[in-house]
Amino acid sequence: MARFIKNRKALVDKGPGMITFIGNQKMEKPRFRLISYNQSEVVEHEAENVKGLVSKMSDKHINWVNIDGLHNPDVINEVGRAFDLSPLVLEDIANTDQRPKIVEDSRNVVIFLKQVQFIADTQNVLSEQITLVLGDNYVISFQERVGTFFEPIRNRIRENVGKLRVKKPDYLFYRIIDTIVDNYMVCLGSLGELIEGNEEHILSKKNKEVIEGIYHHKTEISFVRKAVRPVREITRQLKNSDSELFSESVKPYFADIDDLITHAIETIDVYYTMISDQLNIYNTNLSNSANEVMKVLTIFAAIFIPLTFIAGIYGTNFDYLPELHFKYSYFIMLGVMLLLAVVMLFYFKKKKWL
Amino acid sequence: MARFIKNRKALVDKGPGMITFIGNQKMEKPRFRLISYNQSEVVEHEAENVKGLVSKMSDKHINWVNIDGLHNPDVINEVGRAFDLSPLVLEDIANTDQRPKIVEDSRNVVIFLKQVQFIADTQNVLSEQITLVLGDNYVISFQERVGTFFEPIRNRIRENVGKLRVKKPDYLFYRIIDTIVDNYMVCLGSLGELIEGNEEHILSKKNKEVIEGIYHHKTEISFVRKAVRPVREITRQLKNSDSELFSESVKPYFADIDDLITHAIETIDVYYTMISDQLNIYNTNLSNSANEVMKVLTIFAAIFIPLTFIAGIYGTNFDYLPELHFKYSYFIMLGVMLLLAVVMLFYFKKKKWL
Amino acid sequence: MARFIKNRKALVDKGPGMITFIGNQKMEKPRFRLISYNQSEVVEHEAENVKGLVSKMSDKHINWVNIDGLHNPDVINEVGRAFDLSPLVLEDIANTDQRPKIVEDSRNVVIFLKQVQFIADTQNVLSEQITLVLGDNYVISFQERVGTFFEPIRNRIRENVGKLRVKKPDYLFYRIIDTIVDNYMVCLGSLGELIEGNEEHILSKKNKEVIEGIYHHKTEISFVRKAVRPVREITRQLKNSDSELFSESVKPYFADIDDLITHAIETIDVYYTMISDQLNIYNTNLSNSANEVMKVLTIFAAIFIPLTFIAGIYGTNFDYLPELHFKYSYFIMLGVMLLLAVVMLFYFKKKKWL
Amino acid sequence: MARFIKNRKALVDKGPGMITFIGNQKMEKPRFRLISYNQSEVVEHEAENVKGLVSKMSDKHINWVNIDGLHNPDVINEVGRAFDLSPLVLEDIANTDQRPKIVEDSRNVVIFLKQVQFIADTQNVLSEQITLVLGDNYVISFQERVGTFFEPIRNRIRENVGKLRVKKPDYLFYRIIDTIVDNYMVCLGSLGELIEGNEEHILSKKNKEVIEGIYHHKTEISFVRKAVRPVREITRQLKNSDSELFSESVKPYFADIDDLITHAIETIDVYYTMISDQLNIYNTNLSNSANEVMKVLTIFAAIFIPLTFIAGIYGTNFDYLPELHFKYSYFIMLGVMLLLAVVMLFYFKKKKWL
Amino acid sequence: MARFIKNRKALVDKGPGMITFIGNQKMEKPRFRLISYNQSEVVEHEAENVKGLVSKMSDKHINWVNIDGLHNPDVINEVGRAFDLSPLVLEDIANTDQRPKIVEDSRNVVIFLKQVQFIADTQNVLSEQITLVLGDNYVISFQERVGTFFEPIRNRIRENVGKLRVKKPDYLFYRIIDTIVDNYMVCLGSLGELIEGNEEHILSKKNKEVIEGIYHHKTEISFVRKAVRPVREITRQLKNSDSELFSESVKPYFADIDDLITHAIETIDVYYTMISDQLNIYNTNLSNSANEVMKVLTIFAAIFIPLTFIAGIYGTNFDYLPELHFKYSYFIMLGVMLLLAVVMLFYFKKKKWL
Repeated sequence: MARFIKNRKALVDKGPGMITFIGNQKMEKPRFRLISYNQSEVVEHEAENVKGLVSKMSDKHINWVNIDGLHNPDVINEVGRAFDLSPLVLEDIANTDQRPKIVEDSRNVVIFLKQVQFIADTQNVLSEQITLVLGDNYVISFQERVGTFFEPIRNRIRENVGKLRVKKPDYLFYRIIDTIVDNYMVCLGSLGELIEGNEEHILSKKNKEVIEGIYHHKTEISFVRKAVRPVREITRQLKNSDSELFSESVKPYFADIDDLITHAIETIDVYYTMISDQLNIYNTNLSNSANEVMKVLTIFAAIFIPLTFIAGIYGTNFDYLPELHFKYSYFIMLGVMLLLAVVMLFYFKKKKWL
Repeated sequence: MARFIKNRKALVDKGPGMITFIGNQKMEKPRFRLISYNQSEVVEHEAENVKGLVSKMSDKHINWVNIDGLHNPDVINEVGRAFDLSPLVLEDIANTDQRPKIVEDSRNVVIFLKQVQFIADTQNVLSEQITLVLGDNYVISFQERVGTFFEPIRNRIRENVGKLRVKKPDYLFYRIIDTIVDNYMVCLGSLGELIEGNEEHILSKKNKEVIEGIYHHKTEISFVRKAVRPVREITRQLKNSDSELFSESVKPYFADIDDLITHAIETIDVYYTMISDQLNIYNTNLSNSANEVMKVLTIFAAIFIPLTFIAGIYGTNFDYLPELHFKYSYFIMLGVMLLLAVVMLFYFKKKKWL
Repeated sequence: MARFIKNRKALVDKGPGMITFIGNQKMEKPRFRLISYNQSEVVEHEAENVKGLVSKMSDKHINWVNIDGLHNPDVINEVGRAFDLSPLVLEDIANTDQRPKIVEDSRNVVIFLKQVQFIADTQNVLSEQITLVLGDNYVISFQERVGTFFEPIRNRIRENVGKLRVKKPDYLFYRIIDTIVDNYMVCLGSLGELIEGNEEHILSKKNKEVIEGIYHHKTEISFVRKAVRPVREITRQLKNSDSELFSESVKPYFADIDDLITHAIETIDVYYTMISDQLNIYNTNLSNSANEVMKVLTIFAAIFIPLTFIAGIYGTNFDYLPELHFKYSYFIMLGVMLLLAVVMLFYFKKKKWL
Repeated sequence: MARFIKNRKALVDKGPGMITFIGNQKMEKPRFRLISYNQSEVVEHEAENVKGLVSKMSDKHINWVNIDGLHNPDVINEVGRAFDLSPLVLEDIANTDQRPKIVEDSRNVVIFLKQVQFIADTQNVLSEQITLVLGDNYVISFQERVGTFFEPIRNRIRENVGKLRVKKPDYLFYRIIDTIVDNYMVCLGSLGELIEGNEEHILSKKNKEVIEGIYHHKTEISFVRKAVRPVREITRQLKNSDSELFSESVKPYFADIDDLITHAIETIDVYYTMISDQLNIYNTNLSNSANEVMKVLTIFAAIFIPLTFIAGIYGTNFDYLPELHFKYSYFIMLGVMLLLAVVMLFYFKKKKWL
Repeated sequence: MARFIKNRKALVDKGPGMITFIGNQKMEKPRFRLISYNQSEVVEHEAENVKGLVSKMSDKHINWVNIDGLHNPDVINEVGRAFDLSPLVLEDIANTDQRPKIVEDSRNVVIFLKQVQFIADTQNVLSEQITLVLGDNYVISFQERVGTFFEPIRNRIRENVGKLRVKKPDYLFYRIIDTIVDNYMVCLGSLGELIEGNEEHILSKKNKEVIEGIYHHKTEISFVRKAVRPVREITRQLKNSDSELFSESVKPYFADIDDLITHAIETIDVYYTMISDQLNIYNTNLSNSANEVMKVLTIFAAIFIPLTFIAGIYGTNFDYLPELHFKYSYFIMLGVMLLLAVVMLFYFKKKKWL
């Protein structure tokens, strides 16, 4: 199963405006939640479908609609009708192989991005598409999987920590993006620790695990890069957007995220290069070691093969082999052999093989 | 036969404005089809030549002229006269080694691009040049080969699925491009699955097939890149075009294709780098394995060659070789040999070769 | 002799405005030709010097002055005076190591570019500097070597094929550039066929010829790149030029060349990368093969060296060596040897070396 | 512990505007210093907290507030209240994993950058985040560690050397940045000397130290690059800033720093490439040496193994082995052996292995 | 001693506006020369200090002040006072590790660049910082070393060759830059010849000299690149400068230098890549050769080791070894050995090792 691209054969024969789910998560029951808040109160609802939620929304609150577990084109259609979203946006929500992007029109700002998560056990990075829709008094968030990723924000709303309760929906919108982007840094931190930790192995160990590790880390960092890089286009546009949905006071926050994304991308590039360097160093070290092995082999062979040959000569059974019959022949032979060995050792010493 | 560039020697001695077919497909009989539709009806015609089609076109319909199997300069000339296309455009239609591009003038928008197709059997990517001409009430599509590539769109027109029947020719124009671009993603999906699948071979197998596979995939992905990359210039221009042939409502669709092409190009780059990494890893693994082999060789040689030498000494036939005549000489020799072997084993153990 | 840069020591001590020939072609007698044409007639002249040609030029014709075999500063000076060209332009004409560029002023458009030619015998690419000067009713072309490169255009003028005779000098100017650029594609086609053809060698053969071929192709493609890349700046400027020497109708032709040059450059890049990949694959294959060789060596050595050692022990001449005197010793030894060999073979089988 | 990214898990659950210290320096007692000067006098204060300092500031002086040892969110909060800084700036001051950046508003210019220091003993580069705030009559500098890095500037103020005492706070602001940037060059100078010094080792030595050195230098240079590169964005913005806090006369100084940073970045790139080249050369040299070793082995083996085989034949104990009984057999054998050896030597000579 | 960066520790503790000499040339006595000329006369002076020169300058002449051997901050200060240069410019003149740059103000245009020189003996490239100051009626040139580099220009002034005597100081300014840039091409020509000449060694020789040569050339070309690349920014600005010091007629000359610098940079890039390719090819060839060596070894070993083993068996001294006593045993053994050898040869033939 390809991980860097999802199969969209299903899509080809359908026209645009057709909402087709693209992705390989297995089905979970979707979950519909609404949290409506203003300075004085917080109300939470959970419903069985979109209609149920919409009926609970109120103009006096900021309404955060959270839809988890996204597979059903019907649900997406329903949302589309309820919030009057354009068919292209609906189609992109359903397509979880969407490149991160931002779509602005007069009524909404929609952004598509990936949440990434480093799984410590498998050392794999998982990604999940998140779609955020900002309207005049609501934010809708779509998640592929049912999870607790946004729970900290919900808690801050509930407990009235920070400025969320006193600000407009654009601030909530910002906070959600910020949580996702901060999470990129956390994920990079975990990967970075592993990658910088390779350093101690590459010069001491020589086995498949090291190579597999290096390749695995490179793949994961590529995977994160694919998710993170296009986000800079989004933050740049948010920073400079003239949409009326954004109050002036929220702009510096977007500039801040933009800096963070640039930081993330530069860190990714540093690690990417670092892995390549590690592979090169590992390779060089392997060659070094091969060289060592071969020198040992050559020294043994070059010393003992000639000596064995000499012994072989005097092991022949010729009737007439005069040296065999001299009294000191054997000792002379041993002497000559010793001499040869010493000469060879000096030769290798001079060649700096020893 | 070069695959990345077509032989255009034939062209050089001819002047511009001369329509010369460049390409290496073998001749098929060209096919001329017209599908005229509006909200209420769909009429289809098939003719023997261009004139036959033009006579059936009607101002009350959107007319889609489909010309398959493109080799005959005369046919292209006829089309040129019938629709009043510029000679340079006609020449480019005939040249199937055309770089994807867009040409706009007051009466037409013409785009040249490649359709790519992944052939599962040979794991090859085939490409075919497609030219699309948008006029005020018609779209003309030229294909190199007679095929069924656009059949799904025709079916949607026939069965009135989606918005095709209620929209203008610019929407049909968009739908055709969208089909081609979606197909890039499908093709990349197939290639991607193969490339990501290499992963399991590169660390376990060591043979020519793996290398051939890697090289083959790299060539194919280059081939797709050559076809896809210039298309971004087209979609960017379509998105920003101020031609009167485009209604405002079709612009977001072009922006959507533009995103998709960017996604495709980024995916291509990811896979391209991934293949290089795989080759590097494969190489490192080969070195690892060579190292292993050499260690085995060296250990055997370094242990047994000296022992054989000792045996060789006592195999000599010197008349006077005192050790031969002591009672325990043989056992002492065996002991010394054993000792030597053990010492060597310890030495290699210490060197971590064992 | 450096091929990518020409020796310009001669130039350094001279001032600018000094016309100094830089290049390494050997001297040929220069050739001066004039072809004057309009819709109704074509007149051709050949003269011994510039003056002779200028006297034959007529305002009623388009005059194409062709000067082949460019070494003599005096000739260039004469041309300069006759057509009132700036000293810097004259100096650049003489310097055949000129980077392709365009110089526009109120009276002339001058372009400097390289014609490249693939020599099938030596598989070398030759290049030649060509300078084109466009004036109100003339085009001057300078060539380094006396040749027939522009003969096809001359023939088309003579035989009144195409639009040359009915158009202005800017169209002739375009046609000459187009011929040169088309020739880049032909040259790339030949090189491309060779490079794509390497593919079948790199995995089957292992010898110097393959490496030499790869290196040679890389050098040639670099050479073409150096000539072709800067031409894009020229075509871009021609496309957007507001010089009065260009009629509006010739602009699309320049846009067309611009596309072709972009195509050429992208093709060069594809081939450039392909060659690097081929070298990598070749290297990997070499390592594969080295691995194979070493396994064969190690298997033979690891099996037979211990066996030979055993035989060596029983070849010693100790007086007291009990095994020698048992009846079945020899067969037991053979059996042990067989067993050892089988064990080793199993070991290697398990290691997947067999 | 990852060195290229700091752990920010602590940050994720907190909201923006929450000041959270991110970094891994251990706690030192922070130090609060104020140096107030004008043309006629210099006054210095040291306090226990921010309030103490602020009370000593005077409008008749330029006030440089120096806060060393930055970990305590409370301190940063206090500073924020005292100087009315925006919450986002305060948060960034606390986050020592901040990418270098500049933030301008109507009242302040704030820049965040890294000071780097080459530690000769460990050959490591240390970095420290420094934040500078420029106001109408003050400069605030925050340092991670308590140190003497700015002592030279303080001395110049005290001793009235240079123009500091006669200029506005923007000049002090510039001088601090200049000191930091000059220090980049010093650090690069030390690293450069080490890197250029590798040259002599890579072709003569072959051991792990060389590889470790190369890898270490590459890591350090990457580390410096990560700190230095983003600074160009700062200097570029300073050069072009239209903030009223900058007098016109200070602009050329910023242009000068901008040049210096460009110089630093180019030097980093040169060294970065140089290290890669050194690794390549080292590798090539290793292969060269391996080749040498293998030739020695092969020559010994190819000469003596066949000779030993011959001796082995005549060491067999067959009852009927005619050659054994000829008188000159032994000498003939020796002759044949000598001949064989000479032939082999000639063969290797011809192959240029000797 | 680092060559790509100069030690500027001395600079750090000093303030800007402090003139500190940075460089590693040893002290020569500086030389002060003035050449004043107009159309009718040339006057030359040599003085002991700056004041001496300034007193000789005249408004009726173009004055070229040439100061060689630049180390003394006092001299630079004197020049600064005499010509009223800004302190930052003076400081940069003293810093010979200056990145090439241009500084324009209302009264002067100052450029800093490097002159490079290829020393044939050592195959090293030397560089020297040159500073040029253009004023309304003077040009000042500063050189690090006392030399004859500008002598050709001086001669052309003295002998009234070319246009120097009839043009303004801007033309002299241009001529000096042109001389420096032409010299880049000469230096590249020499390096290029060496680099292209490597080609014949890399496939035939295999020794350290080749590798050292390749590495050395790469370092030198990097060194030239560091000096040349930033010059394009200077020429670009000169081409587009609107300073009143430049007459319109001198602009095309600057455009010409700009082209030349682009040419130089492209040539550097070509050679840079070529060297990398050569190293790759050399490496591949090494592997090829290692493969060859190993095949020879393996063939010898695989043929003779089994045969020696067989001989070893019949060299054992077992009392009961039936084969020893058959009449034709010896010949059968020889036959079997021959057969084995032939089989092995066929096997290697089939594997294409022979």
